[in-house]
Amino acid sequence: MTGFCLLGAGRIGRVHAANIIAHPTASLRYVVDADFAAAEALARRHSAVPLDDPATALADDAVRAVVIGTPTDTHLDMVAAAAAAGKAILCEKPIDLDIDRVDRCLDIVARHGIPFAVGFNRRFDPTLAALRRAVRAGEIGEPEMMIITSRDPAPPPARYFAASGGYFCDSTIHDLDLARWVLGEEPIEVFAMASCLIDPAIGATGDVDTAMTVLRTASGRLCHINNSRRAVYGFDQRVEVFGAKGMLQTENQREIGLTRATATGTDSRPPLKHFYLERYAESFARELDDFVEAIGNGRAPAVTPEDGRRALTLALACERSRREGRAVAP
Amino acid sequence: MTGFCLLGAGRIGRVHAANIIAHPTASLRYVVDADFAAAEALARRHSAVPLDDPATALADDAVRAVVIGTPTDTHLDMVAAAAAAGKAILCEKPIDLDIDRVDRCLDIVARHGIPFAVGFNRRFDPTLAALRRAVRAGEIGEPEMMIITSRDPAPPPARYFAASGGYFCDSTIHDLDLARWVLGEEPIEVFAMASCLIDPAIGATGDVDTAMTVLRTASGRLCHINNSRRAVYGFDQRVEVFGAKGMLQTENQREIGLTRATATGTDSRPPLKHFYLERYAESFARELDDFVEAIGNGRAPAVTPEDGRRALTLALACERSRREGRAVAP
Amino acid sequence: MTGFCLLGAGRIGRVHAANIIAHPTASLRYVVDADFAAAEALARRHSAVPLDDPATALADDAVRAVVIGTPTDTHLDMVAAAAAAGKAILCEKPIDLDIDRVDRCLDIVARHGIPFAVGFNRRFDPTLAALRRAVRAGEIGEPEMMIITSRDPAPPPARYFAASGGYFCDSTIHDLDLARWVLGEEPIEVFAMASCLIDPAIGATGDVDTAMTVLRTASGRLCHINNSRRAVYGFDQRVEVFGAKGMLQTENQREIGLTRATATGTDSRPPLKHFYLERYAESFARELDDFVEAIGNGRAPAVTPEDGRRALTLALACERSRREGRAVAP
Amino acid sequence: MTGFCLLGAGRIGRVHAANIIAHPTASLRYVVDADFAAAEALARRHSAVPLDDPATALADDAVRAVVIGTPTDTHLDMVAAAAAAGKAILCEKPIDLDIDRVDRCLDIVARHGIPFAVGFNRRFDPTLAALRRAVRAGEIGEPEMMIITSRDPAPPPARYFAASGGYFCDSTIHDLDLARWVLGEEPIEVFAMASCLIDPAIGATGDVDTAMTVLRTASGRLCHINNSRRAVYGFDQRVEVFGAKGMLQTENQREIGLTRATATGTDSRPPLKHFYLERYAESFARELDDFVEAIGNGRAPAVTPEDGRRALTLALACERSRREGRAVAP
Repeated sequence: MTGFCLLGAGRIGRVHAANIIAHPTASLRYVVDADFAAAEALARRHSAVPLDDPATALADDAVRAVVIGTPTDTHLDMVAAAAAAGKAILCEKPIDLDIDRVDRCLDIVARHGIPFAVGFNRRFDPTLAALRRAVRAGEIGEPEMMIITSRDPAPPPARYFAASGGYFCDSTIHDLDLARWVLGEEPIEVFAMASCLIDPAIGATGDVDTAMTVLRTASGRLCHINNSRRAVYGFDQRVEVFGAKGMLQTENQREIGLTRATATGTDSRPPLKHFYLERYAESFARELDDFVEAIGNGRAPAVTPEDGRRALTLALACERSRREGRAVAP
Repeated sequence: MTGFCLLGAGRIGRVHAANIIAHPTASLRYVVDADFAAAEALARRHSAVPLDDPATALADDAVRAVVIGTPTDTHLDMVAAAAAAGKAILCEKPIDLDIDRVDRCLDIVARHGIPFAVGFNRRFDPTLAALRRAVRAGEIGEPEMMIITSRDPAPPPARYFAASGGYFCDSTIHDLDLARWVLGEEPIEVFAMASCLIDPAIGATGDVDTAMTVLRTASGRLCHINNSRRAVYGFDQRVEVFGAKGMLQTENQREIGLTRATATGTDSRPPLKHFYLERYAESFARELDDFVEAIGNGRAPAVTPEDGRRALTLALACERSRREGRAVAP
Repeated sequence: MTGFCLLGAGRIGRVHAANIIAHPTASLRYVVDADFAAAEALARRHSAVPLDDPATALADDAVRAVVIGTPTDTHLDMVAAAAAAGKAILCEKPIDLDIDRVDRCLDIVARHGIPFAVGFNRRFDPTLAALRRAVRAGEIGEPEMMIITSRDPAPPPARYFAASGGYFCDSTIHDLDLARWVLGEEPIEVFAMASCLIDPAIGATGDVDTAMTVLRTASGRLCHINNSRRAVYGFDQRVEVFGAKGMLQTENQREIGLTRATATGTDSRPPLKHFYLERYAESFARELDDFVEAIGNGRAPAVTPEDGRRALTLALACERSRREGRAVAP
Repeated sequence: MTGFCLLGAGRIGRVHAANIIAHPTASLRYVVDADFAAAEALARRHSAVPLDDPATALADDAVRAVVIGTPTDTHLDMVAAAAAAGKAILCEKPIDLDIDRVDRCLDIVARHGIPFAVGFNRRFDPTLAALRRAVRAGEIGEPEMMIITSRDPAPPPARYFAASGGYFCDSTIHDLDLARWVLGEEPIEVFAMASCLIDPAIGATGDVDTAMTVLRTASGRLCHINNSRRAVYGFDQRVEVFGAKGMLQTENQREIGLTRATATGTDSRPPLKHFYLERYAESFARELDDFVEAIGNGRAPAVTPEDGRRALTLALACERSRREGRAVAP
């Protein structure tokens, strides 16, 4: 059994806790949150020990792995402490919003030689994984264009924006990782254009809520990403890859597969899965599978620290391009 | 140019008139209708001569072909007159509601050796034709089951029912022809169950408005047909053929290919094409193409008198089965 | 916690075992199978006690509920023993293939006043449940026709047929239950036509592999069911309900939501979920939820013994109709 | 009847000729082509007079309207001659590749006060027109993002590129017009990134074959366009508009609505309509309807000279942006 300490008892922490519990060879030992009541509520449900500080947990030899789901600006400290204690780390994205701090993080991880995974869970989604396999297997020949549509059902609360690092570092970063991972080539040029159309309060923080990004790789492949913070019809997650021999498209998912035809507005279907907790439930579980298996086998997890660094670099380049109105090199 | 005389200036007559006009090697000479005003209105639009009796037209050597779209109980007389005049005949379905009269009709046609086509226009629909080709080409192996869904948007006016011959002879007959044509085997057993659920006025005439039919061919293939006289979402026309190596399904058609996703009732699509004039517009035109080409080449039209006879035999067997509550041989 | 004894360690037993384990308030105490090795293999995986006879388990007060997944002809004995011990019972369908034995079973259950559920798991499928709710809520007005397509990916092994009770009692019975449950009315007339088209070895046992059934309810609603034991494209499970104000259709399910467009044969999609274990995984879990909750709350489970009896009565009527070539009253 | 002179007997000329013939109140008088044999072949089919120079036709009072489908660099001369003769003009897009020459053209048209239509036929496509109506009716609230996918089945022959004006002026210009027309706002910022991935011979001419464009309007709406000169699965034409209250998506079109499910690669569908002649057949006809009706009613045609000018301005800005690697104002 791989003993886990979970850092962060928020929304994402609860997802990880449930997956650890359900995993046949993992056990949840500690739940740590600066808000002790939150730690306690989550820990109790899963018969784990609640803490408001990780020290005790990191000192426990029964803990072999740490999942970091705390606020982004605490990641570096948490990584440093966990690495020093020799624990394997699964860290939510982004590692940090500052590339220098990300580099310090990568140094620490490298120095301690611990397994380190970055939480780009979408890579573990069965449909996206099948998409990538099909691309890599040459089913559509050389890929030439990729179109990523990624829209949230509703904006987060206002207080969220301050620490989010901006739309590209907070949200587009998932899509940027997907582009690199599916196309199998690094973008060498980035352009982004964005607007604040949904809520002026978002614009007042200097951020945007509607964005379009274009990437170009060394061999000339093009990738478009469009993002919105509010799709009233649900969590819209579609990826299309177009190549010399055809096209691949992923479909949105619904809880209920029922169509209704009526006299007015025929062929209605139930709404899309609401948000990432529903749409990517399976990918979070498979992400943990990979992490546990990597620890057991002594291999590196599928998503490397370098992947985390590159995605952030691209997101920062998007932000720079948006401000400067020109294509930039990431 | 093949000169035409059109008998019947009603709804179906107008369809044929337009197709004759649009045909590159056909011309419309006469429009005949007992209601002279109707003949006149249609004839004037197409620069043809209106008549209230076919005699003059049938005596005109410039008329080589006759399209019969008059009420069913007049078909036999019209066929006899046209055949005696040596004209090629395209006769709307059913030839007659009485099998003895159909046989007299077939005798007349055989005696005069004229080209005779029965108006099962659906055989000329590009999608249904592609379905049949795929079945015949073995794309799904031996066909084993066929499912035909055929529902009208709304019932005809009450006065229509008296002369209709009942739901099976009036409407299911199209589907029975399709089953024979696609499966390529004669049904040897027929069962039908039906209800009057839409309008008691229909039931009061002894007729039904909701029906399910099952057919079995000699080799054991099964076919189900479901019919309704009222589908509020539009003209529902779907055919599915299931076989040893797969399944073929035709899709309904819409005028507009637009999907709308909204917060309530996501993914609505525009209504289906309204009725047969819209859905089968192309098949009526291709039916005429076949007829004109058959006349020109001296070959028999694609849908033979025998096809008309067999479909009626099956429809009458459905009616008998429904009344007797047992499977019958057609 | 509700303690369970599982009778039968075969394919369906393994499904129930996994769901009992995963259930937050259920625990698996015993696994019983005449084949002790099978009981042992399954019990060990779930830390339960293996037995080759239920007596010990039924005598254990910690066991409050029994799941019966043994061969059909043993159900009556198992029910009698479990009922005598006062256990709640979840019994796989069909209860028995003989209506007299089903009645004895219902008598026993009634006499002991125990909770008794029949395993028509499809009623718990989220999509089918949504379909029924929509019908009952009047979303398509009065239902008039129901079309059930239910095709297995491949026939069971030859030895399976002897004890299966025939295609209607073995397989169509699920669809018959669905028809009753969704339409909310009892069928009063049944007709079935069937063939052996897939494998002559099936026909040699007197059974069929391709079947079409028609039902009529008291108010005249019609239902068609088509079944095949071999759909090469996967487990085909579709239900359509047509009514005065529209139509509802359920969709097939796929593991992977990916479409591929290529030069030849565009728009291919991954196969359907393979069979009932994949397609109805969630409904088996929800069936257990209902059973555990019913026991806890002292209410009857959702699927009653009477439901089991009626579905069998319909299935036997199908078989009788098929042999006699006429519609019969169930 | 509105008498027509058709200038240009090439592929697009043949489309216009057929639509003029089929129009109830239009007649084709002359077909003019520098290649007299081409003019003769087309004219003969439609009983029109072939010419290798427009002078005779423009001097004929029976000619009221001219359709210009000659090479782009001849448009200005043709417009000048036709306008001087007082004829109404339907001119294929682009009016010219040089904005100064477009302005001279607009001056001529304004001076002579003749009806002048530009051939952005897609505006007349029933589905795209329905899309725009839905956007304008507020069905999805304020539009925020538009995604246009427009991919040809195969590149034109090499000799085509020299006079094409580059990918943006030749092909993207249709999509740029669509963006303006649907969004109802002028783009104020344009960015384009493009590659040559399909055929190095295209790159050798300085042109590209794979392009992504981003537009921003004054109110901040964003539009993405992706273009490819080779989609092996057919002519891919999809438009998506995303707004505050939902999303609208147009569907690709197929000649045959048939799905096939098989053991390998389930759910294949027939190919898309091959190219614009098939996909936009109806829009060309409706474009002519509008032109004829505009002439008859003395109103301006739906697509104005200014529309032609603006689309070219945007296309030229795309080309400039691509070369400079930055967003530009059109």
